[in-house]
Amino acid sequence: MKTGNKYGTHRVIEPQGVLPQPAAKVGNDMSELYDNEILIDVDVLNIDSASFTQIKEQANDNTEEIKSIILAIVAKQGKMKNPVTGSGGMLIGSIEKVGAALEGKIDLKTGDRIATLVSLSLTPLFIEEIIDIKPEIDQVKIKGKAILFESGIYAKLPADLSETLSLAVLDVCGAPAQTERLVKKGDTVVVLGAGGKSGILCCAVAKTIVGEYGMVIGADYSDENINRLKQVGVCHHTIKLNATDALQCYQTIDELTKGQLADVVINNVNIPNTEMGSILMCKDRGTVYFFSMATSFTKAALGAEGVGKDVDMLIGNGYAIGHADMSIDILRKDEKIRKLYEELYT
Amino acid sequence: MKTGNKYGTHRVIEPQGVLPQPAAKVGNDMSELYDNEILIDVDVLNIDSASFTQIKEQANDNTEEIKSIILAIVAKQGKMKNPVTGSGGMLIGSIEKVGAALEGKIDLKTGDRIATLVSLSLTPLFIEEIIDIKPEIDQVKIKGKAILFESGIYAKLPADLSETLSLAVLDVCGAPAQTERLVKKGDTVVVLGAGGKSGILCCAVAKTIVGEYGMVIGADYSDENINRLKQVGVCHHTIKLNATDALQCYQTIDELTKGQLADVVINNVNIPNTEMGSILMCKDRGTVYFFSMATSFTKAALGAEGVGKDVDMLIGNGYAIGHADMSIDILRKDEKIRKLYEELYT
Repeated sequence: MKTGNKYGTHRVIEPQGVLPQPAAKVGNDMSELYDNEILIDVDVLNIDSASFTQIKEQANDNTEEIKSIILAIVAKQGKMKNPVTGSGGMLIGSIEKVGAALEGKIDLKTGDRIATLVSLSLTPLFIEEIIDIKPEIDQVKIKGKAILFESGIYAKLPADLSETLSLAVLDVCGAPAQTERLVKKGDTVVVLGAGGKSGILCCAVAKTIVGEYGMVIGADYSDENINRLKQVGVCHHTIKLNATDALQCYQTIDELTKGQLADVVINNVNIPNTEMGSILMCKDRGTVYFFSMATSFTKAALGAEGVGKDVDMLIGNGYAIGHADMSIDILRKDEKIRKLYEELYT
Repeated sequence: MKTGNKYGTHRVIEPQGVLPQPAAKVGNDMSELYDNEILIDVDVLNIDSASFTQIKEQANDNTEEIKSIILAIVAKQGKMKNPVTGSGGMLIGSIEKVGAALEGKIDLKTGDRIATLVSLSLTPLFIEEIIDIKPEIDQVKIKGKAILFESGIYAKLPADLSETLSLAVLDVCGAPAQTERLVKKGDTVVVLGAGGKSGILCCAVAKTIVGEYGMVIGADYSDENINRLKQVGVCHHTIKLNATDALQCYQTIDELTKGQLADVVINNVNIPNTEMGSILMCKDRGTVYFFSMATSFTKAALGAEGVGKDVDMLIGNGYAIGHADMSIDILRKDEKIRKLYEELYT
């Protein structure tokens, strides 16, 4: 059996010398495995939302056309990386085989149900058949196989929650995990986009940590989301706010905190131009965590300098050790959030 | 006297309700000052390098044409924000007047020589006359006035160093200041783009902190820069490395650190596609500091997740409290660096 590279470069066909994510084509021949590969029998692809939206548009919402596009992408690249959006998604399946070099070193065995937490944009995939498309939740039921590399991350699906519910939470589990690390007792925390899927989990985590002298402020642009936040009760204050209006952001939080501003700002807003509002809300030596993929590096960097704000600005990392278990646990402990997420995302 | 806004929004003419940086036009009438404004008698504009390069090209290197372009930009916008690159620069001048609301609260008085450390892209500027253009060091000598807002940052120019030398260092002083915060005794630190203006200062700071059990690795792509690094002796190892080759980055640092990888990676490389190399060099729970303006937020965020790296990734903030004094002090303490910077940048 061949020895594989930790990051899966042994599967890269074109161009040589790059990692699987930027590669144009990776090998998806599952008949011969490398010693550090994990073979997965795949049931469900959870296509990244931006990617699925693009495919649906291209296909004029025609189901057969959607299937053709997906099959063509995977046939060409050996992986499900949308050539327009560059994004992937995740998958659910059962472990079929764990490579000899990993046996006993990881907690997976044949038959375990897992969700991969690395992007489909780098995961070798072979589709035998597309069984069904569920466009309303971006899911594709397939018969197929995939490879998880040694560096690849995954979560075992818990037995006490439905797979769809677990998947919804695992999709955003980086944000609450980072929130847990950043927030301290007594902190004032602002969560932007607080009523969305990741926002509510961030608020829940923050509220547990800040304690009685701290404050969690949940800000959202949509009335519906504000109502959801109130319904689950994870904030001390909920405010309606346009995160692209930097001055309004500053004035609102300045008033609410009596000029103290926030220790930690968590930005989950998936629209452009929310960098400056996030920065102005934060006190000097505070931390702004940008989880939104719409964040512009230069707008954040030059924005902070332009107003002389000495804040630490973090690039959202979707991976944190233990993030999956930690996020699933929020649903176990909080009945209200679990019910809401079952309604919304399953 | 009118009361001004801390961030200078009172000077914004168009569009209303935004900050001075994104504004299309700010007021540059210096005859009436707000109570929290600082009026500067300006001698020198240090145009941002990207901006000056663009202007020189547009003017076919014709000096009179360069002058016309600069005058036209300032006449139209009330500030020197290059409409193509969006960038500004900084200025040198003498304090002419400190607004009544700031008197006694800041350490500036009439006659002090300062460099502004906020971008020219948000600084109200009036040019009476352009006296001289020095294209080789991106400087423009003028007769004119500028306004520093209450939130604006500045550095008093030290009496013991030439103004040009101080300016060269102040231009990049955020990076060494952040390095000082991030690096701890015993750390392994990799500086990418180590032989450049900010890189050498970062290495110098890191080497002082890591002590005898730590290690500073200076990586650069250019032989000339590698030689400079050796000449000033601020690294334990200097290596020639292409920062866009992620796998080479990983393998080199993996070998050099015997599989431990780096605690802190400081990226000063001003070219695209160096995110993945920086991430792979860093150990789990280590920190990658992106000071390069060529950094892509999404490439960093998705890159770390894709390889399952639990690293903290920071967006370079050009401002840190005390950064100017701290950086100038490096030149005072290190004769070799000072001599090199005098040769290269004055």
